[in-house]
Parts: sequence; C-alpha cells; structure tokens
Amino acid sequence: MLADHSNDDQKCKIRRLDLADKNKGFIELLRQLTVCDSVSDKEFEDRFKELASEGDDHIICVVEDNDTGKIVATGSVFIEKKFIRNCGKVGHIEDLVVDANARGKQLGKKMIEFLTKHARSIGCYKVILDCSTENKAFYEKCGFKEKEIQMVKYFPW
Amino acid sequence: MLADHSNDDQKCKIRRLDLADKNKGFIELLRQLTVCDSVSDKEFEDRFKELASEGDDHIICVVEDNDTGKIVATGSVFIEKKFIRNCGKVGHIEDLVVDANARGKQLGKKMIEFLTKHARSIGCYKVILDCSTENKAFYEKCGFKEKEIQMVKYFPW
Repeated sequence: MLADHSNDDQKCKIRRLDLADKNKGFIELLRQLTVCDSVSDKEFEDRFKELASEGDDHIICVVEDNDTGKIVATGSVFIEKKFIRNCGKVGHIEDLVVDANARGKQLGKKMIEFLTKHARSIGCYKVILDCSTENKAFYEKCGFKEKEIQMVKYFPW
Repeated sequence: MLADHSNDDQKCKIRRLDLADKNKGFIELLRQLTVCDSVSDKEFEDRFKELASEGDDHIICVVEDNDTGKIVATGSVFIEKKFIRNCGKVGHIEDLVVDANARGKQLGKKMIEFLTKHARSIGCYKVILDCSTENKAFYEKCGFKEKEIQMVKYFPW
C-alpha cells in the first residue's frame, strides 16, 4: 500500500512572506540561524515594504505548518544585475533556515529548489550561496558545487 | 627628499561609473575578469539605468587613467536588506578587476577600501565577497577574513 503524501505536500507549500508572518514565529525562526533580536512591528513593516518594492528581484519565502500556524522554514533569493556575461543576472540565496522540530521533511531542499527555480525564471545564468563546510553535502544534494571561498569584514558597532 | 605622490593620487581617483565609460574600455576591462561579450550601446544604457535607479544600494565604481582616458580598475558593491541582525544590511562586493597593465599601484586595495567604506556608511554590519584561494592573501591585506565556502549552480542556456 502506498503512503498518502498529499497531506504532507499541503504542509510543505512554499509561499512568499506575508506581513502577518511576524506573529507566526518568523523572527523566532530566524533566531535559529543567527542573531536576530526582537524587531518592532514598525521595523518589520518598513523592511517588509522595502523588500516588497523590489518585486521579483528579492523574494523571501516561507513554509507555514497548517496545524500549528507557525512558520517552519524560510529562505530568500535576490537578483544581482551585472554587466559581465552579456549584462547577466545572478541569484544570491540567503538566510535559509528550517525549524529544528521540522527537520527530515526535506523542507530545506524544497526551499532551495523553489528559490533556484525562481532565479532561473528571472533569467539568471547562475545561483550562488555561502555556507559552512558542514552544510556542503546538503547543498551538493541540491545540485550545487563548491567554487570559491567567502571573505568577510565585520564593522564595529 | 620625499616623493611627490600628488599626481599618483590624482590618477587613482575613484568615481562612479558613467555612461561614457563604455567607450573608455570598461567592457574590455571586465573581459579580463570573466566572460563579457560585446554589449550594445542600448543594452549598456538600459543596464546602467536599472542600476542607477538603485542609488546608493548598488554602486559600480571605476578608476580612469587620465593620461590614456582608459578605465583601469572597477569594482561594485550592492546592499542586501535583511530581517536578521535587527533588520541589518550586508554589503556584497562583486566584480573587482584591475587592468593587467595597471598593477602595482594598489588600485585594487583602494577600490576595496572605497567600496567597504561605502557599505559601512550605508549602515551595513558587514561586507562580504567571494574569491579564489589564490586571491585570499590580497583580501586579508584589505582586512578580510575567510569565513565560509561559496556554492554555485550554473543554468544551461
């Protein structure tokens, strides 16, 4: 007998971030990724609108657990416009995180596929991301290959 | 007797890309970095205007050799707006290239410093870039540290 995954698929629906997601644990989810102090409703709305004004050139996506009403996965991609590669475009994937309690459902892989597909539909010639060496194998399963190294300079507050 | 570097400083003046730079070897310079086929005047102008509309959030800078009227260095930085880090911002440095005949004048280092300063002035908490392991030492001299690895997925044409 085949397992019925239709309910699982419904639960894994990827959609764009909505203003109401702030009260569905979106910020708390980002906190599983890195430093993300509390953000006021005004700050959230302002940043949300700034990003929305970029349209398809910068999308933030989420997966909401329909049972709990909580955001359990998120990821973003923004489109960089270049002169190289015949005025080409590059998709930059950022801030992918899956709730620790929602692992094992391939939400991360599905999110990466969704963001990659978006970048391709916009006309990008490649999509890139930076990750730790521990996460390299995951991205290889998503069809990515290691290419360069990321260098960083932090500014003092 | 101290050397007079005032003329050198004049020659190393960093400014934003101008529409007229297409005829000053800007595309040919990018070709030293990667694939960059010929771009029509219309394509160049369209992309230039798209980028200009992003204002300080995406700047492309150049150094013009006043003697030859040629562009000898270029680099860009764009500002990514996030929710993490208190709705923080990150500067992404891209497409740095110094003409092979203009090496040894620290144009690359000056360009990185200029782009980094710009990102900081916009309120970024960090600036990042991807490079080959061969160029790591150069970026370390610019105050950067290795952090993660870059993963890439190219799309077939």
